[in-house]
Amino acid sequence: MLTLASDFGSPYPAAMKGVICSRTDAQLIDVAHDLPRQDPRAAAFWLRETLPHFPPAVHLAVVDPGVGTDRRAIAIRVADHALVGPDNGLLRPVVRRLAEQAGGTPSIAAYEITVDDPASTTFHGRDVFAPAAADIHETGLDRIDTVEPLSPVDLDSCVDLRFPEPTRDGDTVHGEVLVVDDFGNVITNIPGTELAGIEQATVNDISAPVVDTFDRVDAGSRLLTVGSHGYVECDVNRGRGDEAFGLGVGDRFELVAGGPA
Amino acid sequence: MLTLASDFGSPYPAAMKGVICSRTDAQLIDVAHDLPRQDPRAAAFWLRETLPHFPPAVHLAVVDPGVGTDRRAIAIRVADHALVGPDNGLLRPVVRRLAEQAGGTPSIAAYEITVDDPASTTFHGRDVFAPAAADIHETGLDRIDTVEPLSPVDLDSCVDLRFPEPTRDGDTVHGEVLVVDDFGNVITNIPGTELAGIEQATVNDISAPVVDTFDRVDAGSRLLTVGSHGYVECDVNRGRGDEAFGLGVGDRFELVAGGPA
Amino acid sequence: MLTLASDFGSPYPAAMKGVICSRTDAQLIDVAHDLPRQDPRAAAFWLRETLPHFPPAVHLAVVDPGVGTDRRAIAIRVADHALVGPDNGLLRPVVRRLAEQAGGTPSIAAYEITVDDPASTTFHGRDVFAPAAADIHETGLDRIDTVEPLSPVDLDSCVDLRFPEPTRDGDTVHGEVLVVDDFGNVITNIPGTELAGIEQATVNDISAPVVDTFDRVDAGSRLLTVGSHGYVECDVNRGRGDEAFGLGVGDRFELVAGGPA
Repeated sequence: MLTLASDFGSPYPAAMKGVICSRTDAQLIDVAHDLPRQDPRAAAFWLRETLPHFPPAVHLAVVDPGVGTDRRAIAIRVADHALVGPDNGLLRPVVRRLAEQAGGTPSIAAYEITVDDPASTTFHGRDVFAPAAADIHETGLDRIDTVEPLSPVDLDSCVDLRFPEPTRDGDTVHGEVLVVDDFGNVITNIPGTELAGIEQATVNDISAPVVDTFDRVDAGSRLLTVGSHGYVECDVNRGRGDEAFGLGVGDRFELVAGGPA
Repeated sequence: MLTLASDFGSPYPAAMKGVICSRTDAQLIDVAHDLPRQDPRAAAFWLRETLPHFPPAVHLAVVDPGVGTDRRAIAIRVADHALVGPDNGLLRPVVRRLAEQAGGTPSIAAYEITVDDPASTTFHGRDVFAPAAADIHETGLDRIDTVEPLSPVDLDSCVDLRFPEPTRDGDTVHGEVLVVDDFGNVITNIPGTELAGIEQATVNDISAPVVDTFDRVDAGSRLLTVGSHGYVECDVNRGRGDEAFGLGVGDRFELVAGGPA
Repeated sequence: MLTLASDFGSPYPAAMKGVICSRTDAQLIDVAHDLPRQDPRAAAFWLRETLPHFPPAVHLAVVDPGVGTDRRAIAIRVADHALVGPDNGLLRPVVRRLAEQAGGTPSIAAYEITVDDPASTTFHGRDVFAPAAADIHETGLDRIDTVEPLSPVDLDSCVDLRFPEPTRDGDTVHGEVLVVDDFGNVITNIPGTELAGIEQATVNDISAPVVDTFDRVDAGSRLLTVGSHGYVECDVNRGRGDEAFGLGVGDRFELVAGGPA
């Protein structure tokens, strides 16, 4: 199985699929091709939240504002999965999650992908990453060392990327918006445990009830909930939380438990 | 074969695909993930118009504004197909169409899906429906009764959903817009037979020719036609019918045959 | 393998997939369903740039403003590929590219697809093209002559479509925009070789550096580069070239090498 994720929109992913199908019979699964555009941090969040649900697979993931510069192309094997993409931090959160999921001391190995003269300087998804992912799938993870354009590198030499941690100041939790989803739900970096036992909270002085799901409040009303990823979300039932709370990706905000019911 | 339909946009469907692929080798087919958002009636129309074209399959369909409340999760087997989704009426029109298509007295059985402690209260697509659909596929329809979280219920106990019927008042047909498609074509609930033998008609006093296809009128001009679903459509050649006729989903309107040519 | 491309958006492609899966076990690959709407020339560009990357396959491609009129439905076999779609020129550029790619004297044959009484006049993707593509796949290219609704026609009788060639007037190259991609990159008809050895150029008096990739200029800055298709592109790093250069599909413009650095 080979999954594809990118911020390429359409129809560029089709060229990658063609290249892959020319090299391997792998079953292809589209993860998403509208990952947050040229935003490796937000894209890394979605990779971490989706890819670990898959059985062992090769995962191609390209959100790559530095394409054609001297940023490296890399592949990382972790347990039964391999990730292929640019060395800009995009792959690191999902690698950590897959390692946790594997438990024990999973096998992790990083490789640089070197293609001497790619056909383009701007579409390494097609010319560098897709062939490498296909070849890794075709060769098999046990023999990943033998895939030609791969050479081992230290994982620590690869760009890391970590999501910001919330901080606490008395009753106030200082959080940051990690992503906004297609529904307008605002997904923060605050663990859901912060809302345990609380019925109401304020976000930047906007008060909203803490509920377990959307339909606990009227259509159009704000709510706070623990989203499916385990983080605090600022949402609106059948509406857009980003607009109602005035929050976008990367915005910082203050969460205070309690407040007027 | 397992098809997926939802209003989840992207990338949430990828988590469902991962869960499914972990449980079955079924071929996955994306039907659509931009079904009319949180609008089970409009989404039910599209399910009815697309799923019956498929060979025997398990169909996962999630448009579920009541997720996490006490609405039930259900599966319905009809002939060689199984539908899995929320008990909000979404599945009923396609079940009726599949039963008609099967002819005779097709086997129809409904089941409640009970998952004691799903991982989330807001993403039952991933935590309830996807595992159930995968397990039904893996077990096979003949043994659907043995799929663990399924318990038989009376189909009549499931929420029904029927599209409104047009009414007639002298020369006037009172219709309603069921859906607007991506092209802006306005698909109504009026059977195409109403346009038989007619060359011109008015919709809310807007007159337009009745033609068999778009290119019978100039680019940018309004037309009425019998769409591919068999209903009267209010369209514009190479333009948007919804804007030109001032009609949106759920709007009622009056159709009068004839009028100025 | 059977690929699908259209301008149908969603969910109409699902009906085509259902029809195909009822007739063949072919692996389905979505190329794109948001090809430039009702614009066969721009859509033909994307088909030419994506489909030749695939291994031997049947390619269904529908951008068909003339659906239901007397335009023909056709299939064209070229080397190990077959293309199925409307006879409006859409398929011709990719046929030429596939023939070049095959080298030598590839086998090319054209067929008219005749369906006496299709179920609809407006959705030949579902009622004419999908069944034909599925049947060609199921029958195999070697026996394409035996697919029932196909009858041989002269390729020269099929509508041709050629992209405009740039012209030169002294130092000025007169070009035209072929397509604008999802990123807003403006893809022109000027071969990349025109930029060889040049560091700066003007497009309609807007000066921009000639670079090998986006990140050579600051975020938000204009650039000219040779895109992954080999043509001159007018782009903005992490922004939209179409807006910054004021260019859209079909616009003509003047490119002059040099200019103020």
